[in-house]
Amino acid sequence: MDNFAFYSPTYFDFGKDTEYHVAELIQKYGGTKVLLHYGGGSIKKSGLYDRVTDTLKKAGLAFCELGGVKPNPRSGLVREGIRLCQQENVDFILAVGGGSTIDSAKAIAAGSLYDGDFMDFYRGKAKIQKALPIGTILTIAAAGSEGSPNTVITDEETMVKKGTKSDLLRPKFSILNPALTCTLPPYQTAAGATDIMIHVCERYFSNTEEVEITDRLCEAILKTIIYEAPRVIENPEHYEARANIMWAGMLAHNNVCGVGRVQDWASHHIEHELSALYDVNHGAGLAVIAPLWMRYVSKMNPHKFILFATRVWDVPMDESHPEDVILKGIEAFEAFLKKIGMPSSFAEIGAREEDIEKMTDKLLNGRETEGNYVKLTRDDVIAIYRSAL
Amino acid sequence: MDNFAFYSPTYFDFGKDTEYHVAELIQKYGGTKVLLHYGGGSIKKSGLYDRVTDTLKKAGLAFCELGGVKPNPRSGLVREGIRLCQQENVDFILAVGGGSTIDSAKAIAAGSLYDGDFMDFYRGKAKIQKALPIGTILTIAAAGSEGSPNTVITDEETMVKKGTKSDLLRPKFSILNPALTCTLPPYQTAAGATDIMIHVCERYFSNTEEVEITDRLCEAILKTIIYEAPRVIENPEHYEARANIMWAGMLAHNNVCGVGRVQDWASHHIEHELSALYDVNHGAGLAVIAPLWMRYVSKMNPHKFILFATRVWDVPMDESHPEDVILKGIEAFEAFLKKIGMPSSFAEIGAREEDIEKMTDKLLNGRETEGNYVKLTRDDVIAIYRSAL
Repeated sequence: MDNFAFYSPTYFDFGKDTEYHVAELIQKYGGTKVLLHYGGGSIKKSGLYDRVTDTLKKAGLAFCELGGVKPNPRSGLVREGIRLCQQENVDFILAVGGGSTIDSAKAIAAGSLYDGDFMDFYRGKAKIQKALPIGTILTIAAAGSEGSPNTVITDEETMVKKGTKSDLLRPKFSILNPALTCTLPPYQTAAGATDIMIHVCERYFSNTEEVEITDRLCEAILKTIIYEAPRVIENPEHYEARANIMWAGMLAHNNVCGVGRVQDWASHHIEHELSALYDVNHGAGLAVIAPLWMRYVSKMNPHKFILFATRVWDVPMDESHPEDVILKGIEAFEAFLKKIGMPSSFAEIGAREEDIEKMTDKLLNGRETEGNYVKLTRDDVIAIYRSAL
Repeated sequence: MDNFAFYSPTYFDFGKDTEYHVAELIQKYGGTKVLLHYGGGSIKKSGLYDRVTDTLKKAGLAFCELGGVKPNPRSGLVREGIRLCQQENVDFILAVGGGSTIDSAKAIAAGSLYDGDFMDFYRGKAKIQKALPIGTILTIAAAGSEGSPNTVITDEETMVKKGTKSDLLRPKFSILNPALTCTLPPYQTAAGATDIMIHVCERYFSNTEEVEITDRLCEAILKTIIYEAPRVIENPEHYEARANIMWAGMLAHNNVCGVGRVQDWASHHIEHELSALYDVNHGAGLAVIAPLWMRYVSKMNPHKFILFATRVWDVPMDESHPEDVILKGIEAFEAFLKKIGMPSSFAEIGAREEDIEKMTDKLLNGRETEGNYVKLTRDDVIAIYRSAL
């Protein structure tokens, strides 16, 4: 186990009707003028927008608002949010939505207190020194941004997806009401479940030895999604299954299951090029890429795939044919993804063979390799993309 | 799953040589005058005392000190600590030791800023409104106090063990260097591992339905201890096994595996009377009580014991004889405790039959029942104590 620091100071308020606590929580964390940040019309249709704004008004909390966050959130709207925060002297950002809205809110939070262009943080040109406090009301279990220091933004000029992180971006509070996710369509639910699983897998597939506790935590989260996701696909209003997925989604990405080890993240980075170029759902893109990454790298570095097969997918161990065990584990994962309605090929997500080299070059951006469990060369990345054709 | 709040804001600095970060961390959290609180001579023998005080001196941090914390920490020393903090204008408490030292530090932290007697908090007569910030350097993986809001103190006048909790008592930082635990004798190591397991079991045995994610997390921690504890007993200087146990110990009690469910805590409370009366090691007392509690309550409420047997102890399911499955699970746990050198009877811990009624009355203290998984009556508690004879 490697040395590590772990810090997850977010206050999580979990359960039914917890959105009614929002004004009280904002005030507890010092907010007096709020930017209410959200996506499309779904929170208006569901009534959540009204409940939140009523609660803010009753508490006498001033707020302005900026909707319109799209999946794979864009730099343009972030700049608009920064201008608004500066003009209106906003001192607290409330993100109501999923990972895209929260990531966009984090970008606005850091950018509002920075003299330069906020994309400096995402381009590695500057380090976040301060940020407005943020709170979230989560409406989809997927990205884990509600408990993480991470944010990913798509640069509209280049259509490159870039991430950054800072403990200053961890939400002060996150309100997690599973009932708010009960209206999600099955495809988005399944894509969220996939994103959660791959957040875990990026940590699980590590060459760091002697990490039993975090291996077991990873397996616990994966097992939970394997059990709960099909229940939700079958019965979208299953509150209890939604609740288990929602808490698992936070745990999958606040890094409690990833500390003390070198993590991989190749699947995420390979996928980011797909969602940046085709605006495909991130979880759906991962459903295509991650199993192909597994098939490819398991031949080069099999050791962790035995655990994945036997502990996560209950494949019986066969000492004389470990390669069969590994394959059965990956096949079980593929069958699971298919069962919950996720795609498995470029064709299903509208990706094109002729873009593969361009995506690979954007991904590597001058670096020799991608990932850590296996250090993928340019040829390796191309081979993984091509296996999706 | 029940509604819940989860808040674990402690900064964990984990790994080799992390004790050298102590002054920097105290300063980060605003400390200028420190009370260094510790137990017996072991931190002096090991050199840790010198390393810590050197680090404080080099950073120019003023400190006073109070050693002498005993296992099952006492109210008298807490009062001494409170006087010292008030006299010396201490603004930060550094606990160097195990759960007893940290629990004592928490009591001093709350008592120093309170006009009445600090035991009011433990007797339910007052609520903690403020507390000095505390940091910890952990020297034994066991109590989980390094990441919890809890503290347990033995009232010297009555020899009753009393607990309280407050988010204000959560350490600002905890330094977890597994190497510091490598000099622990096997008995203390095994007792620590037992305490960790029972912290999980108190949460696992719950009648709250639909808690797959926290069930799985509980099982992950238990599986880790089952794997790592015997490795450490065999090879006390096994850093990696120590590391896994140390992180598991924190996770077992910061409540990440216990949220959203009614918890039990009967085994802990039944044990507390033993350690208060005979000054027996808390983990060793739990090794006696917890399996007997399991044997007793599994007949009255079997449902969770099937999971315990099959998922934690890998007992094959036998649908036609679930009672055998349950018994095999409990027997596996008992065999494990025996293997790591833990006691299983009153005789081994110096407890006496003639004290059973007195302990039961002290435990219930006028209440009708104890515990939640099964609500134990006075007769039930007596029967559990008697089964240890």
